Amino acid sequence: MEKPLRLGVAGLGVVGTSLIQLLQRRQAEFIARAGCECVLTAYSARRKRDATAGLEQVRFFENAAAMAASADIDVFVELIGGADGAAFEAVKAALARGLPVVSANKAMLAAHGLRLANLSESHRAPLYYEAAVGGGIPVVKTLRESLAGNTIQRVAGILNGTCNYILSRMETEKLTFDVCLAEAQRLGYAEADPTFDIGGFDTAHKLAILASLAFGSKIDAAAVSVEGIESITLADLAAADELGFRIKLLGVAERTPHGIEQRVHPTMVSKSAPLAQTMGVLNAVSIDGDAVGELTLVGPGAGGDATASAVAADIADIARGTRLPTFGRPAATLVDADRVPMQRHEGGYYVRLAVADRPGAMGAIAARFGERMISLEAIMQKRAPKESAASGVVPVVLMTHGTTEASIRDALAHAVEDGVVREKPQVIRIEREAF
Amino acid sequence: MEKPLRLGVAGLGVVGTSLIQLLQRRQAEFIARAGCECVLTAYSARRKRDATAGLEQVRFFENAAAMAASADIDVFVELIGGADGAAFEAVKAALARGLPVVSANKAMLAAHGLRLANLSESHRAPLYYEAAVGGGIPVVKTLRESLAGNTIQRVAGILNGTCNYILSRMETEKLTFDVCLAEAQRLGYAEADPTFDIGGFDTAHKLAILASLAFGSKIDAAAVSVEGIESITLADLAAADELGFRIKLLGVAERTPHGIEQRVHPTMVSKSAPLAQTMGVLNAVSIDGDAVGELTLVGPGAGGDATASAVAADIADIARGTRLPTFGRPAATLVDADRVPMQRHEGGYYVRLAVADRPGAMGAIAARFGERMISLEAIMQKRAPKESAASGVVPVVLMTHGTTEASIRDALAHAVEDGVVREKPQVIRIEREAF
Repeated sequence: MEKPLRLGVAGLGVVGTSLIQLLQRRQAEFIARAGCECVLTAYSARRKRDATAGLEQVRFFENAAAMAASADIDVFVELIGGADGAAFEAVKAALARGLPVVSANKAMLAAHGLRLANLSESHRAPLYYEAAVGGGIPVVKTLRESLAGNTIQRVAGILNGTCNYILSRMETEKLTFDVCLAEAQRLGYAEADPTFDIGGFDTAHKLAILASLAFGSKIDAAAVSVEGIESITLADLAAADELGFRIKLLGVAERTPHGIEQRVHPTMVSKSAPLAQTMGVLNAVSIDGDAVGELTLVGPGAGGDATASAVAADIADIARGTRLPTFGRPAATLVDADRVPMQRHEGGYYVRLAVADRPGAMGAIAARFGERMISLEAIMQKRAPKESAASGVVPVVLMTHGTTEASIRDALAHAVEDGVVREKPQVIRIEREAF
Repeated sequence: MEKPLRLGVAGLGVVGTSLIQLLQRRQAEFIARAGCECVLTAYSARRKRDATAGLEQVRFFENAAAMAASADIDVFVELIGGADGAAFEAVKAALARGLPVVSANKAMLAAHGLRLANLSESHRAPLYYEAAVGGGIPVVKTLRESLAGNTIQRVAGILNGTCNYILSRMETEKLTFDVCLAEAQRLGYAEADPTFDIGGFDTAHKLAILASLAFGSKIDAAAVSVEGIESITLADLAAADELGFRIKLLGVAERTPHGIEQRVHPTMVSKSAPLAQTMGVLNAVSIDGDAVGELTLVGPGAGGDATASAVAADIADIARGTRLPTFGRPAATLVDADRVPMQRHEGGYYVRLAVADRPGAMGAIAARFGERMISLEAIMQKRAPKESAASGVVPVVLMTHGTTEASIRDALAHAVEDGVVREKPQVIRIEREAF
């Protein structure tokens, strides 16, 4: 057996604590699979753990960067989080010293991934981050290694368990967004300030990582168009159900004639697609490759143990001597990410409107769509509920065939101007192809 | 860039042809990801390809083993198939020479995997076989690498597209087994002699591979209990539907108090489970790990391009210098597989009976179950169809709570002896836990 692999772990939150327990519990398994013992040698945290934590023999550092720069370790594990600050400083220090790094930090990778990839290569120190996307789901390894022979057409995923939990509960229990968000907060699935999750920003960070791996582009969080789930109502979920869809917050990176789109938004997904069947806090990623066809990975996207499982896999890869470039190919070969404006997106659209309850209103709307060559696949107009009848508007749902975002937005702006559409229209993109 | 990786490909069937096309088409991608060009240098096949095949510059061997033993190649790719004969001889010759081998041959691995793993280690030549299980789904890599920190509790998969196609069509179109099998043969999904697929033997080979990877045991095809799908009727599918289940041919390897069970049989799977939602020729594997929880991978389990995608990934791993033991840990550490008799299996059971249409018959059956402490979760007895009423039997479906296979078989044998059950009972195992 090889000599032990000495770990320095920065950050003893939920994931760090799970990782240490996992490595203790699974030492024999780790030795069998990775060929060496894995020993916690140093840690950093906000405070030194007391004698009961079993860390007496482990050197404590107050400062993660100091540990990265000076501790007698073979792998630096960064579980601090945050794009900048302590995490970024420490990871730079470790790589600069030629120390392999394992990180779960999607925000840091989205912000500084290219710079870190260059640092990793120039110092021949691998930087692995399976835990940064999809928790325990091995999507980073799948894109980096298992699809080496494929041209990727699209990666689409449910990458935020909080949003999926909220949308799933709204749908199955007919509860409002606010009620489900409060419930997610009560259960610890959502932060006190939930903006980062429900606004789609967490999904965007993860999507930026997947896009770089899938398309060989420089990671570029600014290339991602982002919309959150705050505006989704029970009326949308009911209409989706009737039309054969579910609404999911997807991150989608896709090869199009205009370049590679990266977008995060609530999406209508056919009920029969694997992504639509992913409920609750689970994550799922579907990958379309020209050779493999469609591959879907489903599993726990968060939680201490599932995330620690991914961190442990990266550590095992390092122990076995696997040395791969950060984004699957040499950083120098990564191309600039396209920044495709959302206005150029082409696809089908779901539109929910509050239409003036008067003769000719629907005709006026249809005319605005027709002018832009938008053809309609479905129109649903139900008898108006009492309150809207009193308010003089009727709820109408339209589904379009393929068109552009620019055309839809323009048609709707004119319909609002015409006075036939009374409130801000709800617009949700449809993903048609089989996933 | 490193010097080119020279391939020798044995077998130019569907997968071999797809692989050669893929490597030509994706040369730039392969170079970017694997760091070197990948050049077809030699091939063997039943006949030399003519000038139009683009293989003029590639050395032809009539004999795969001769190519493995003597060609100037860096990787030997075995796409011949079959447990013994040319494939096995050639792979042994390649490994003995220290040549890395990529194979898609589940039958050979199931029969000779341990011997090949030893040969691979003693000659320091890796043997990879992602394509042998689940086609394009990266399940071998996931078990070998991504779950290094987990104790696996269970691996369960739909591993044969032919069976899943037949069961899916029977269910959705209410067609009989024979009609769906004929249709599968017409579409090229099933062989002229379909026994290997529908009898569960192909699934058993793949399960044996997954079990060795998941549980660190010596691969042992004889440890797998096998039942096929030939006996599944529309009556079973209709009853399953009513009870909230689908019937799938699963391969299941599971840690139990009696050892690690390996079994292939038609299985009742809750409709909400990812495996139940896998329809048609797709494959899917669910893995329960103590840290990760449940992970499900879904994708194309067969077809030239999907299989070639997996072969290309193994070649890329070799090009990158990844060197891992055949079954994820040193062959010397693999333990004997348990051979748990199916009689010891514990779980719920679905039982469909032709019950004598006379007073007291159901009571007699219930008594036989009661004697063995088998408690019933559901009983469905519908008004008998005319033909069965005339024949004096009534169809009855029972679902049991957890019990043992021995108890169920014993209770049914007695009920048949008692004369209250008239035909061979249909028995289908239920997988209850969430997958």
